[in-house]
Formats: sequence, C-alpha cells, structure tokens
Amino acid sequence: MPNETKATDKFTIIDELARRRGFFWQSNDIYGGVAGFATYGPLGAKLKQNIERKLRELFVNKLGILEIESPIITPAKVFEASGHVDHFKEPMVECLKCKKRFRADHLLQEFAKIDESESEKMGLKELKEAIEKHNIKCSECGGTLGEPKLFLTMFKTTIGPYSQAIGYGRPEAAQGIFVEFRRLYEMAREKLPFGVLQIGHALRNEISPRQGLIRLREFTIVDLEFFFDPEEPDCLLLKDVENEKLHLFLAEAKLRGSEEITDVTVKEALRKGYIKTEWQAFFMACFQKLVEDLGVPAEKQRFIEKLPWERAHYSIQSFDQQFYDERWGWTEVSGHAYRTDYDLKRHMEFSGQDMRVYKEYEKPVEREQLVIKPIMARLGPTFKKDAAAVAKMLSKANAEEIKVSIEKSGHYMLGKYKVLPEHMEIQRQKVVERGRRFIPHVVEPSVGSDRLVYVALEYAYRVKDDRTLLSFPRDIAPIQIGIYPLVSKDGLPEKASELHEMLLDEGFIVDYDEAGSIGRRYARADEIGIPLGITVDYDTLKDNTVTIRDRDSWRQVRSSIEALPELLCKYFKWKINFEDLGKPFKG
Amino acid sequence: MPNETKATDKFTIIDELARRRGFFWQSNDIYGGVAGFATYGPLGAKLKQNIERKLRELFVNKLGILEIESPIITPAKVFEASGHVDHFKEPMVECLKCKKRFRADHLLQEFAKIDESESEKMGLKELKEAIEKHNIKCSECGGTLGEPKLFLTMFKTTIGPYSQAIGYGRPEAAQGIFVEFRRLYEMAREKLPFGVLQIGHALRNEISPRQGLIRLREFTIVDLEFFFDPEEPDCLLLKDVENEKLHLFLAEAKLRGSEEITDVTVKEALRKGYIKTEWQAFFMACFQKLVEDLGVPAEKQRFIEKLPWERAHYSIQSFDQQFYDERWGWTEVSGHAYRTDYDLKRHMEFSGQDMRVYKEYEKPVEREQLVIKPIMARLGPTFKKDAAAVAKMLSKANAEEIKVSIEKSGHYMLGKYKVLPEHMEIQRQKVVERGRRFIPHVVEPSVGSDRLVYVALEYAYRVKDDRTLLSFPRDIAPIQIGIYPLVSKDGLPEKASELHEMLLDEGFIVDYDEAGSIGRRYARADEIGIPLGITVDYDTLKDNTVTIRDRDSWRQVRSSIEALPELLCKYFKWKINFEDLGKPFKG
Repeated sequence: MPNETKATDKFTIIDELARRRGFFWQSNDIYGGVAGFATYGPLGAKLKQNIERKLRELFVNKLGILEIESPIITPAKVFEASGHVDHFKEPMVECLKCKKRFRADHLLQEFAKIDESESEKMGLKELKEAIEKHNIKCSECGGTLGEPKLFLTMFKTTIGPYSQAIGYGRPEAAQGIFVEFRRLYEMAREKLPFGVLQIGHALRNEISPRQGLIRLREFTIVDLEFFFDPEEPDCLLLKDVENEKLHLFLAEAKLRGSEEITDVTVKEALRKGYIKTEWQAFFMACFQKLVEDLGVPAEKQRFIEKLPWERAHYSIQSFDQQFYDERWGWTEVSGHAYRTDYDLKRHMEFSGQDMRVYKEYEKPVEREQLVIKPIMARLGPTFKKDAAAVAKMLSKANAEEIKVSIEKSGHYMLGKYKVLPEHMEIQRQKVVERGRRFIPHVVEPSVGSDRLVYVALEYAYRVKDDRTLLSFPRDIAPIQIGIYPLVSKDGLPEKASELHEMLLDEGFIVDYDEAGSIGRRYARADEIGIPLGITVDYDTLKDNTVTIRDRDSWRQVRSSIEALPELLCKYFKWKINFEDLGKPFKG
Repeated sequence: MPNETKATDKFTIIDELARRRGFFWQSNDIYGGVAGFATYGPLGAKLKQNIERKLRELFVNKLGILEIESPIITPAKVFEASGHVDHFKEPMVECLKCKKRFRADHLLQEFAKIDESESEKMGLKELKEAIEKHNIKCSECGGTLGEPKLFLTMFKTTIGPYSQAIGYGRPEAAQGIFVEFRRLYEMAREKLPFGVLQIGHALRNEISPRQGLIRLREFTIVDLEFFFDPEEPDCLLLKDVENEKLHLFLAEAKLRGSEEITDVTVKEALRKGYIKTEWQAFFMACFQKLVEDLGVPAEKQRFIEKLPWERAHYSIQSFDQQFYDERWGWTEVSGHAYRTDYDLKRHMEFSGQDMRVYKEYEKPVEREQLVIKPIMARLGPTFKKDAAAVAKMLSKANAEEIKVSIEKSGHYMLGKYKVLPEHMEIQRQKVVERGRRFIPHVVEPSVGSDRLVYVALEYAYRVKDDRTLLSFPRDIAPIQIGIYPLVSKDGLPEKASELHEMLLDEGFIVDYDEAGSIGRRYARADEIGIPLGITVDYDTLKDNTVTIRDRDSWRQVRSSIEALPELLCKYFKWKINFEDLGKPFKG
C-alpha cells in the first residue's frame, strides 16, 4: 500500500523527469490515456535494452541458459492446463449505483487498513463481510457495493475467424517454455540440469492498475525456468555464491506478526532449511547481485517468503525479492518460485505428451521384487470360466499388498474374487533397473524489465548543488558519452563532429550537443545520466587533446584523442576508473 | 501464390532444419498448434536479435533515429482515428454446409488462377460473382460457399473490467509513434527532419495464414516513421546512396501487363519521378543494402510499386521490397509507404491535439493581403438592427471572394444579406509572416524481423559434399565460435574449457563441444552456421597454438591463443579476413 503521498517524493520526481526527458510516460495520452500502459521514449528504451542485455550476458552467454521467443497470444488450452483459467483471478466489486468496479481486496487495504497478506487470504464471502463491517462505499459516488465476484485477469481474444477459438494474452512467458519442453530438452542434449529463459511482453488485465511502471497491464517479463532432477538437486555453481549474505523475511516470522529479518549466507540458508532448493538459493543470490549492479545496495533489498495463501497455485515455496521504495515501501522486484513438476505434469495430463525424461543410472541397479505366479491348475477348479481372467488380474496386482493380506487374513479379495494362498506362488525375484523416468523439477526466477528500469532510475537519482543527476552505473547509462564543442565557432564544431563520427564508428552510444552554454549542456547531460562528457576546445585544435568530465564528481581529466577508443572501451567494461582516462585538469 | 510444392524445395528443407536444430517451429504443437504462431529456439532467437541489432546499429546509432517502445494492446480510439477499424479487413466466405471459413480472394487465386493484384481489387459483389462463375466450392466438404463478408483482421479484446472498453492488438507499430508525435518532436529538439523507429510484436488476425515465418498472426514488426517538411523534402544523406542501382517493377508496367524491370540509380529514379520523395528513395536504398548484407544479392531483389487499389488506405505511393524465393516466387520483405500527413491529420481531428509544427522563416516574409473594412455609417441605414452583425461577418469573410463577386455582379451575398460596394472599403495591406504551421509528411519503411530471419536462413543454405552448411554473414551468425578439444582426454578438454572461458569473458558467443569425432562436430557446427571452429590439440599443450577452421571453405589456419581476442574481434567487425587469422595449416 502507498505511504502518504508527498508532492516531492521520488516517485513523483522520477515520473516527472521521465516524462520530460523521454524515459517513459503513459501511452496514448492524446486520447486521455488508459491506466497500466507505458511508452518508453528513446532514453527509456535504451536503458531497458541495456538492462536486458546485462541479464542476457549473465544468464545466456555466461551460464549457457537457452533463450527462446514465443508468442504472446496463446490458445486457451495452454492456460487451461497451466491452471491460469481457473486461478488467475482477482476479487472485484461493483457499485450498485454508478456501476464502477473496484478490486475488493484493495478497497479493504485502502479504507480499512487491512494488511495485504490478510486481504489476499479472504474468500468472496469474507470480503463481502469485511466490506459491510467497515462500511466501505463506492469512492466515486458513495453508492453501496454489490456482491464480490472473481474477475479473470487475462486478456481474452479469438484467434482466426471462428469465435470459439479462444486465445489469451499470456500473463507469464513461462508456459511458452513448458509446452516446448521436449524439444528444448533435446536442444540441451538431453541432459539435466538446464535452463531456458524468455524476455518478452506479457499481459495482465488488472482491474485498476496503479504505481506507474511498477504495475502495468502490459509489461516485459523475464522468465527463467530451470529444470533439474529432484533426486540430484545439487547446484553445481553454489560455490560461487555460498558466502553471499541474504536478508530473509521468513514466513515463520510473518506468521508471528514479527518483521524480523534473518541475515544468513546462502550456505546457511540452505543448511537451516530456510530455502528448500539449492538452485533457488543460487538464483536468489544472482538476482541480489544483479539488482545491486543496477544501483540498489544490498541493505535496501530483502527476500520475503510468501505465505501459503499468497503463493501462486503452482508453487511450494516462493520468495519475492523486494527493494525499498521511498513512496511504496518494500516493493517486489523479482519473484522466485519453486514450481516443482507442477507445470510439466499438467501439460502431460492435458496434452498426452510424455514430459518425463529418462536418466540412466551410472551402474544398473539390482533390486529384489515380489512376484505373484498364479497356479492355473488350482485356479481352474475354483473359478471355472473366470480362471484365466483371475490369473491375469493376479499377476498384475500389487504383490506386496497380496502378501500382507494373506499373512493377515489368509486370503485376498481380487475385486469380487476371493483368492487363497494355494492359488499362487509368491516369489522373490531379482530385477535389473538401468535408469528411471521422471518429470524434472523447476525453479523459476521471474522479473519485470519495467520494474528494473524503475528501480535503476530511482536509485540513480541524486541532487547535487540543486542540480538533478542520474547516476546510472556506467554500463546501463542510455547514452555513454556527450561530445561538446566549447563554442559554436572557429572550427570547434567541425572538430567535435569528427570526434563524434569516430566514436560512433567504434560502436559507442554518443550524443552531440552544441546548443547553449557549456554549463547548460553539462547540466542537461547530468540530468539524463551521461557518464562522460568530452569537450573540444581551442587547445584541441593545437594538440589534439580533449577534456573528459565525470558526471558524478564533475572532475575533469585531459586526454589525447588517439588514446580515447581504447581507454573508453576499458572504462565502460569496468576495467579502469575515471582517473585512468587522462591527466587531472582544472577547467 | 505458391508455385507447385516440391518435397525438397528450400522452404521445406529450411523448415525441417529449423525445427530440428531449434531455429523456429510452430508454437504449442503439443496441443496441435495453431497456424500463424512461431516459437524461436535458442539459435533462431539469437539470429533474430543479431538482425535487429544490425537495424539498430544503422538507424539508431549511426543515423540518430529515435527508438521507442510502446504497448501492443491499444485503445480502440487510436485505430478508429488511424482508419484501421474501417479498412483493416479482408473478404471472407463461409461454407454453407460445414461452416468452414476461407479468404475469398485467396480462393480465387488458388482455384481460378486469378492474379493477386486482380483479386485484391474486387469488391464483395465481384468476389461473389467470380466464385460463382468459376464454380468454386468448399475445399473441405464440397459445399456451396455463402455471401462474402468483410472480416476485421485485428485481434480484439477488452481493457480492464468494463466490456465497453475495447482494445485491439496493434497490427503495426506505427500508430504508437504517431500518437506520441508532439512529445517525440520535442525530443528531436523541435527540428525536422527526424525519424522514430519501433521494433516489437504486432498482431494480424489472418483468416488462414500460410507460409511459415513469412505470414504470421503474431510477428515482430520494425516500423520507421520519418517526418519531414513537405516544402523542404530534400534528403540530406542522398549523396551516400544516389549511385546505388535499384531494380524497379513500376505500376505503369504492371498495368500494361508487362513484367519489365526498370534498372535505375537512386538519382535517376528521383529525376524521372519513379519515386516521389527523396527520403523514400534513400530508405529503399538502405534496405536493399541491408538485405544484401543478410546474404541476398541485389539481383535477387526488386522493388514493386503497388497499384492504387493495392496500397494501404494511408499511402499515396508504396513500394514493396521483394526477394526471390525458390518456392513462393517474388515475396515481400519490406514495405515503403509515403504516408504523407494522413496519420497525424487524422489524430489531430480525432483527438483535438494540434499536430502541426511551427517553422520560422529564415527571414520574415512580407506579404500583401486584401482586407475588408465595413463602413458602419452606411451599413446602419441599410441593415438597421442587423448592421453590427453584418459588419462583423463582413470583416471575417473571404476578402478575395468578395472582391471578385463585386467586380462581377456589383454585390455580394453574405448569407441572406446583400452587401454593396458602398458598404465597405477594400484595402491592400502589408502583413509580416514570421513562419508557418504545418503537419509534417511521413515516409515509412516497414519490415518484419521474422521475414528477415527467413530470408537470412534461405540464402545462407548451401550443400557442400552432401553436407548442409548455413553460410550466414559472420556478423549475424547465432554462434560465433565453436571450441573443440581434438579428443576427450590427456588434458585437452581442460585446455579447451579454459579457452572457452576466456573467449566468453571477452564477450564472444562461444559453443563448447566435445561429443563425437571431430569431423562430426565440424558437421554439426556447419549445419548451424558457426563461422569459426577452434580446435585444441596436442600441440596446443606444447606451444599454446590452436587451429582455426573456416566454415565455408573448410580451410584451416594456426594461431597463438594470446593473439586470439584481438584477431577475432577484428574478424567479426569485418576488419580482417579469415586468412589474416593465422598461418595456413593442413589438418
């Protein structure tokens, strides 16, 4: 729930700055706009791409996770199987007078100060009672609110010219991975563990979205499904993160009404059973690092364990990674669900496709097994014409069960047939098993690119000497370098344009600006977070050197133009610091 | 229309290869699939990203075109204004017996061999007559076909909980740019010309899609809207492309029933008026080069001018860039429409937002203008109590019209009032105009990423010594380098893994493979188009050198590991050739 809104809170400031400088804004506002849709302008689109590139570098390039791209519009069957058609619903109430519709649990949060985890737990009946008890009326017209109903928050459409061919806009990209599991498993050379990632638009038809980029009806989701053998759940990469500290807000504490944070290393969190699976812990540590790299210090992050009724229908343990937001308080940035074999199992049931994998044992395993051998010569006289059928049933029945029953009561009821010890032999046999067939388990880290963009913006925001500055980490800044001729005459613009061309050719993202005083240009650049400004002055014409200015410290160094490409390349790869770009210089 | 299908045509081969190696396949096939939706596997997703990166490098980074990202789901008003709700329709007929639905014009193309440009011209009545004349029946059950109707080929949904809030899946990304024009113009610092680009999913609810990646219901569109002053339509970059040769198939030839191709340079095409606007010609040349860079030689490309009835409702001149496809013949890859001020004008009408820009003249312009000055002393006696109203109307009326009327007939009818020369003075006055207000014109190149992916695949396909090879240009190959230990023992895998790590750290896309004979690994790599293979052998352990193998020529060179990062970096930027990577080597 929002804290009290301050006119100058960061959310408002970022929102205004984002609109003015073209990071993002509400779409279609010439037609009044529709809540829950945002358009990214040039700077925002680039910032978002840079963040997505970081995700790809880490997960796809370095960890070898497979990336796919599947459609948004999906035939209904997929979401029937996944359980979304039944479960992806929110409670809605309608004003009986003006017909305006509200999200029932949000009303209770807002007007009765009922906690989110409480209101999420309520059924329709409880919601109705609570609304009546707290005498909540329509916030538009004061009218009485009707019966709460469940509203399916997927966008619905039809595919092709037949109205019965229902399709939904996907609310998550995960299903596009699960339905293709067999093929993807082949591409992973039929070896576990392996992961598949997808980055793409997703749609959730929220009843009344708020919070700008944080809760959109159309957003970009990053779903990573990581498949592993539940009997060999060891994370091969755990060593890399085991000593990272996590701040956990455990369900157990929440249930006690406590806000206690458990600070543990990844290793401890696993040893103490706070996190159930190694791979889940691994990805939680990866995401903490990632969000840190976007500018949010670890102490402004935590992982909150979801209570059973807060979890999605497919998960047996879920953590939300949260960041601290000045206006909205602790706010979700990524989700980490242990989906087990739920999705693959459901798709196996609904489609008939075998989703099991076969894993050969290193050595075949010899096992003893009870086997029932019917004795026909004795079954014949007892069961007559049914004897053959009884024999068949007997050899397929559970041998252990038969043995127990006979030992206990001297007979076994095979349907309507009473079989006696004399009808069979019970033998112990050795069987050799070469492998086993099973459905892999899945842990899923899932994050919205839009939230990462918002987080990066909010945590980049600084005020220095009354001037706004977006202090983006250098590898995600939408524009890397600004080029400025000191004045617009005497050949300086020509020289600066040459440099501009050269750096473009080298692949840098460069902005050229010659409008206004140099101070004003620096201020404009700081406000959109350009890490480096290069100024071409009269000395440049003489000795081919330029000054480079640091966005954050406003310090300057002087360097030769020839040395720039290599120096800048190293700088943006975090291999050198600003001081290494040249000799100190006072402008 | 498809040529006769051969079992071994390239389309079929590519389709099979794409499915087997994970470039792309029909989505959701465990549920039987739905036509018109494709999923990209790891290799296809990467190929597509590389192609999109090339587009961005050219248009966004180098030409400074602004990139934005707007939502797919769009409120109905936007597409009412754009004309899509009225025009984005296709003719459909239903079988009266089995109720199957078909695209009427496609039936005529398929079963009556009526040319595409003919059938597209037909109205519903003509389609009906043609279907009857050619006695076309339902291809499923032989039933009679009903009345053709228009089917809106946009996906329709509702936004939020109210059923009256209609939204559509965007069939093009262009409108997401037009509706934000005012803001984008500000970001372009209120200067023309400027361009805005968007790459994202789009939806077209085709009646019966065919042709795999070439015609999808959900696809990725690249729309580039380039805004310019129609009174200053000069392309500043024309010099860069003016001598490029274009192969034009002009409307004039098509109307003559000829297939004549006009080979002209860009400059000639403009001088002779074949292409109406310089910027359009510029982008056509850019796209020809781009598609060439993806592997399609210029002689396998042409630009076909659309006939008036084939053009979209917003365009006054359109060319389709086509490539030659072995199965489908000449096939559209990009579209180039001169949209004029159509879209901005419509949004201005529908939203009330002023979409005009103001351009100051370099020098203010002095102009003479006729002005009517009513003479009250004379109007009073004639019009009595209406005199003031007449005076007001008179001063607002069109002075030129009044002058002409009075010269011709001695009076002027101002509504019901007859005014005479004595009622007014007609004066010439000088006015100073400092600038003008106008709606910019737009040329739009538009291309589907999916088609570019298909084109790149088809033109990369080679057979060499009975082996399949995808000869992608090196900068779009999904995987850049394969790393192979010669054998899986004696420390070679460890050494190769080290090299793998090193090249990953340098940012290359690298695959490691130690399964099977080296020959089999090369073959696997060739089939997915990995340009370079690096083999670690026993000599590597001694002198730290490796062999590098060229996918296309199968030649090999030997190079030291230390030199690799720099050499490979230059190679993938097209700065050096394969021979420059090391010394010739016979494996």
